[in-house]
Amino acid sequence: MKSYRKELWFNVPTRRALVNITPQVEEALAESGVREGLALVNAMHITASVFINDDESGLHQDFETFLERLAPHEPVEQYRHNDTGEDNADAHIKRQIMGREVVVAITDGALDFGPWEQIFYGEFDGRRKKRVLVKIIGE
Amino acid sequence: MKSYRKELWFNVPTRRALVNITPQVEEALAESGVREGLALVNAMHITASVFINDDESGLHQDFETFLERLAPHEPVEQYRHNDTGEDNADAHIKRQIMGREVVVAITDGALDFGPWEQIFYGEFDGRRKKRVLVKIIGE
Amino acid sequence: MKSYRKELWFNVPTRRALVNITPQVEEALAESGVREGLALVNAMHITASVFINDDESGLHQDFETFLERLAPHEPVEQYRHNDTGEDNADAHIKRQIMGREVVVAITDGALDFGPWEQIFYGEFDGRRKKRVLVKIIGE
Repeated sequence: MKSYRKELWFNVPTRRALVNITPQVEEALAESGVREGLALVNAMHITASVFINDDESGLHQDFETFLERLAPHEPVEQYRHNDTGEDNADAHIKRQIMGREVVVAITDGALDFGPWEQIFYGEFDGRRKKRVLVKIIGE
Repeated sequence: MKSYRKELWFNVPTRRALVNITPQVEEALAESGVREGLALVNAMHITASVFINDDESGLHQDFETFLERLAPHEPVEQYRHNDTGEDNADAHIKRQIMGREVVVAITDGALDFGPWEQIFYGEFDGRRKKRVLVKIIGE
Repeated sequence: MKSYRKELWFNVPTRRALVNITPQVEEALAESGVREGLALVNAMHITASVFINDDESGLHQDFETFLERLAPHEPVEQYRHNDTGEDNADAHIKRQIMGREVVVAITDGALDFGPWEQIFYGEFDGRRKKRVLVKIIGE
């Protein structure tokens, strides 16, 4: 069994953004040499998400509107987590809705995807350096 | 390490439905010959979900009511994704809430499940052919 | 390829609670002897969750408030699942929001975590014995 590990670094200039990281995951897969196996891709921070959906800007606006309706950033005083001096309780909740990780099948050395699947880094508390972990196992 | 791949096809006649796919996943597992390992089961489309919960029709109505309250299909004009000519923005959001995939332990050649766990395909934009991927790795 | 399986048992005295299970998962990893691989940690019950977030009590209150707003326990009559005599439809929905499982990378014999990642058992229908499955594969 082979295993391969790579960290992807991000410094999103806004509080919230969705970044298509499919090319970076494909690059890690090529580096791994794995032909059959599984790739785990997860946010290493608990105010960010990794998920799979469509790379369409209108949909990304819809996700933003949806998440802000469910767990609005302001007023920050509505969250007990923010009593600690933080202002990112909403980001912890948004990440929970969108998910921490994806597991992707690797077949014939490629990400085994349907026609529209793309991997996104969902940043909900940006403006600082944060990481995504890619861990690949297989043969 | 063994690996096995199978696509399951669905053509749900309604826009939304929940389909118990546990027997098909068990069949794929038997075909794989894997006794110890992991099974990844994921929707290959981004308007559908694979998740684990109870096979009880009342609960399935509750999921439908819950998802329609959070991300209603109509009016379709409320979503910017639908400005592209699509009418399925709500399906992309519903799938995000319910999740893309499950990873299931394989022990002694069987899905290692608690007493009520069943795997469902959650269709949120049906009336066409769509796929689920089963990828099994192990020994 | 090595594989290792362990059940963790819980009997939460309240209906809902979040329990940090990171030490138990680390113990299972040490027992497995796996140095490189993947750990699957999942609730074996469909009214409970396993997820990764922050061990901060204010945030846990925020999760409770958020989940009760989205899928309140009462009135129990609002859910069709509860027509069966159950009163836990809300717990099935809450678990769906928070997720069934996490998959964690194992690197150099340790859980490969970012600085604040902790694994939680999310109980939404407690006051009875319930299980979490840890399945580890790798080398």
